[in-house]
Parts: sequence; C-alpha cells; structure tokens
Amino acid sequence: MDFDPSHAVAILERTPAVFRALLAGLPDVWVTPNEGPETFSAFDNLGHVIHGERADWIPRARIILAQGASRTFAPYDRFAQMRESAGKTVAHLLDEFAALRAQNLETLRGWNLTDEQLALQGEHPALGTVTLRQLLSTWVAHDLGHLAQTSRVMAKQYRDAVGPWRAYLPIMDR
Amino acid sequence: MDFDPSHAVAILERTPAVFRALLAGLPDVWVTPNEGPETFSAFDNLGHVIHGERADWIPRARIILAQGASRTFAPYDRFAQMRESAGKTVAHLLDEFAALRAQNLETLRGWNLTDEQLALQGEHPALGTVTLRQLLSTWVAHDLGHLAQTSRVMAKQYRDAVGPWRAYLPIMDR
Repeated sequence: MDFDPSHAVAILERTPAVFRALLAGLPDVWVTPNEGPETFSAFDNLGHVIHGERADWIPRARIILAQGASRTFAPYDRFAQMRESAGKTVAHLLDEFAALRAQNLETLRGWNLTDEQLALQGEHPALGTVTLRQLLSTWVAHDLGHLAQTSRVMAKQYRDAVGPWRAYLPIMDR
Repeated sequence: MDFDPSHAVAILERTPAVFRALLAGLPDVWVTPNEGPETFSAFDNLGHVIHGERADWIPRARIILAQGASRTFAPYDRFAQMRESAGKTVAHLLDEFAALRAQNLETLRGWNLTDEQLALQGEHPALGTVTLRQLLSTWVAHDLGHLAQTSRVMAKQYRDAVGPWRAYLPIMDR
C-alpha cells in the first residue's frame, strides 16, 4: 500500500509499548543472547531503535525539508548502540525509547506535511536519491523489522529445547 | 538454552499484552492483509495463537501427563482460525486470547511439574516421540514465531513504499 501519514503514525506510536510489553522485567536469559557474531540481542535491538530516534529518521527528514546545498545524509552506524547502551538496563532503555519517540512524533505531527513536502528528495550515501515519503515509510518498516528480529533472537534460544518441532518452526533457522 | 518453567512462563504470560500493544485500535490496512495465498494476516496470526490455547498446548500436555493407552495427539488444524475468527473484531480476539492464556497458565502453574513429569513422552502424529519439556518449549517458541510473523506481514505492506531502502530490509523478501 502507499504511505499514509496517519497509518504510519499508528505504528510508530505503538512500538515503544510493544517493546515494553515484550521485554520489561523479562529474565536476562531472553534479553542478552544474540544470534552469533555481529548480530543483535533483544537488548541490542532496543538500543538500535533508540539510536535511530537520535541519529536517523527525524535528522534525515530535517535535511530533506531544508533542501539546502547538501542533501546527503550522514552515514548511519548500525552498531552505535553497542557503545550507547553500555551499562544501561532494559528498563532505562524502554523509558528512553518512549520519551524520544514521543518527542519525534510531536515534531512529525507539528510539520503537518503536504504531499509536495513528502515528495522532496535527499541523498542517501549508499542508496542514492530518496524521498521524504520513502524515509518515513522506512521508519515504520524498520520498527516492525526490529520487533520481528527481537522475537526471532528470543525464539532461537529454544532452538534445541523444542526437539523435533524445529522442523515446524522456520524462525529457528532464519 | 535448556527449558526452564519459570523462563517459559515469563514469555507466555507476556504474549497477550504484546499482541494488544501492537494491534489494539490499529487501522484495518495493517491488520487484514496477508503475504499471499495460504498465509496469515496479523488478524489470522492472532486467531491462530487463540486456537492453540484451545486445541494444542494444554490439551496435548494433558495427554502426555495422563500416560494412557493412546498418547498420540490429535492433528492440529493450522487454518482453524479462518473459521473460528470469522466475524470477530481484533478487540474481541485480544480479550479472548488474554482470557484463555491466563486460564492455561493457571493450569500449568497448578501442575507444579517435576523433572520426571517434564521427561514424559507423547506421540506427535507426524514428528513421532516428543517430551512434555519439548511441547512446552514449543509453546514459547510458537508465540515468538507468530509475533515475528505478525510484524513481518505488517512490514511487507510498505514493501514498495520504502523505495530503495528495500535493499536494507531483508524482512520484505522473507
């Protein structure tokens, strides 16, 4: 389907509560393991979406809306959360995510974007020309992708425990 | 990691709230589309985990615990929710899931299972001999798998809207 600001916000405003329902108070055995080298644990996924609130979506939208001389986004650090989340608790990260997301959605709503603005372009350092509409769609899809990834890394902790049922659980071998 | 009843319950007791945070009040455009023929929408995923509460996990655990003459489970209907959810709202299904899950966890806790009981066996109609421990592990992994699947089918609705970012979103082509 096409991007629609109200549909996008409906997802974006729910994500912090979804992470909270899934992770708040959960034993560490579910939260800290990852899927192997250079992959994210549930904790890392949460840190990663937080980094996006600070460095990616709204800052890049500002670059597009400004239509200045340089419209090229700063490259995004996929592993920034390894540094930024260090020493923090899940409870702290859940609060941080909720606060940053609320603030960013207030900014987004305040812009009251027109179709003309949504069609404005920026330059992604690797992907080339992109529109504001595509950026905001990606924000939504990125949330859902990391919810799926968080559920997956947790499910994999029971890869051996499920025994023969592994054959019916494709998520275990993804 | 190995199955542990308290770790398993920590996931099982959260899942209804995760589905609620994700789906309650969400526009239908996110809830009703699926990934193609014979696949599940977000609505179908919710109906499917409800059917599991009624027909799968606890009923099969009872068969194992009884250690009767026949320990073979009834085959599981992966598409039962197409019939059972018909005409119901998301709000209704969320309440139904929460109520059934709470009831089933009360049953599970009441059993106070010993290691010996967790090692008891049943016969899966296709997979062969399985233990109660494996069944309960699969209940947990199945929850997480359907949370991931629900997030994925929703993300895919923006497969085209994200433009060139699709290359960075493996979930779109899974």
